[in-house]
Amino acid sequence: MRSDEYEEVEYEPTSVKDLLVEMKDTSELIVDLAYSAIIFDSDDLGEEVRNLESRMDFLRYQIRMIALMASRTREDSERLAGILQVASAAETISNAAGDMANLLEQRIEARPFLPFVLREAEERIRTVHMGKDSSMVGRSIGHLMVEAETGMRIIAIRRRHRWTYDPADDMVLKQDDLLIVRGTEDGYRRLRRYAAGEEAWPK
Amino acid sequence: MRSDEYEEVEYEPTSVKDLLVEMKDTSELIVDLAYSAIIFDSDDLGEEVRNLESRMDFLRYQIRMIALMASRTREDSERLAGILQVASAAETISNAAGDMANLLEQRIEARPFLPFVLREAEERIRTVHMGKDSSMVGRSIGHLMVEAETGMRIIAIRRRHRWTYDPADDMVLKQDDLLIVRGTEDGYRRLRRYAAGEEAWPK
Repeated sequence: MRSDEYEEVEYEPTSVKDLLVEMKDTSELIVDLAYSAIIFDSDDLGEEVRNLESRMDFLRYQIRMIALMASRTREDSERLAGILQVASAAETISNAAGDMANLLEQRIEARPFLPFVLREAEERIRTVHMGKDSSMVGRSIGHLMVEAETGMRIIAIRRRHRWTYDPADDMVLKQDDLLIVRGTEDGYRRLRRYAAGEEAWPK
Repeated sequence: MRSDEYEEVEYEPTSVKDLLVEMKDTSELIVDLAYSAIIFDSDDLGEEVRNLESRMDFLRYQIRMIALMASRTREDSERLAGILQVASAAETISNAAGDMANLLEQRIEARPFLPFVLREAEERIRTVHMGKDSSMVGRSIGHLMVEAETGMRIIAIRRRHRWTYDPADDMVLKQDDLLIVRGTEDGYRRLRRYAAGEEAWPK
């Protein structure tokens, strides 16, 4: 499908494959974030869950549009029906994650109620914003060796409205990327200083 | 809660915490398995998804029972209501994963429809059964260094009806454990030989 072919309709022309891969990745990420939001009683992560949930609604609309337009034969229809069922399950998963995160919006006096139950590990999930002065910007995750250097694992990166789950080593960090990271408090503090440009990357 | 206190009712006495942790882990594992079942068109993994879904139903019944019996004060109720909401979301997630796996039961001529769309990586998720003659039995994952030796990462272990997601290094393998592993075809074949006892573990 060419991008100039459907310019008049309101969706981003892309492939069913790309959409489904993004929906799959998003549904895995959002579950991780929703539990983390609850466990760490974090409005910040709860907000990211809501962003992802909106993104998922948009993706589901898109994949339906494209599937309906692409279906020509009976075999096409069978394949695409299967794909839409998976897309639907991915959206249900993301809605369930959203329901969890909505707990954070309730004014329950017993908050935080789940940390006492679920929080066990020393590791936490946090967000890190890439500042324009950071010496990490313009370099790849693999080149920086982020995990070896700080002990923080990058779970996902949000760039504008798009999420990359489990980013590859050759992904180059850009200004305003939002990193979702998991690791110790100490590693988080160090990474945040590098990302804010308060300290130069050690290598 | 003492195990002798409620002997007459049909549930396993345990803590809300343990149940919630198992539901959380199960909901993460089942999503992973459901996508894998679809991507690799695997009835074997589809069956595991159904097993986990049944287990989740059981867990949800249990956590409700315990929460209802444990709630004494208003603060208890608020905490437990939050916990039941998370449990409910975890079950919704597992049902959505089950819906995906149900695609495998349909006699759709276009099967496999999703592998063409989603399968990209060389890595696959497979199951490995621990035979009684395996030299791995009775030794811990960390001692064996399973991943270093075979390149296969153990995603989860099923022991009887209980799943352990992302097992710790000190977990000792037992006969009849079912391992869910991810890695290359070559690593899988080697691991399967060790697990079946056809070959002794190299170290």
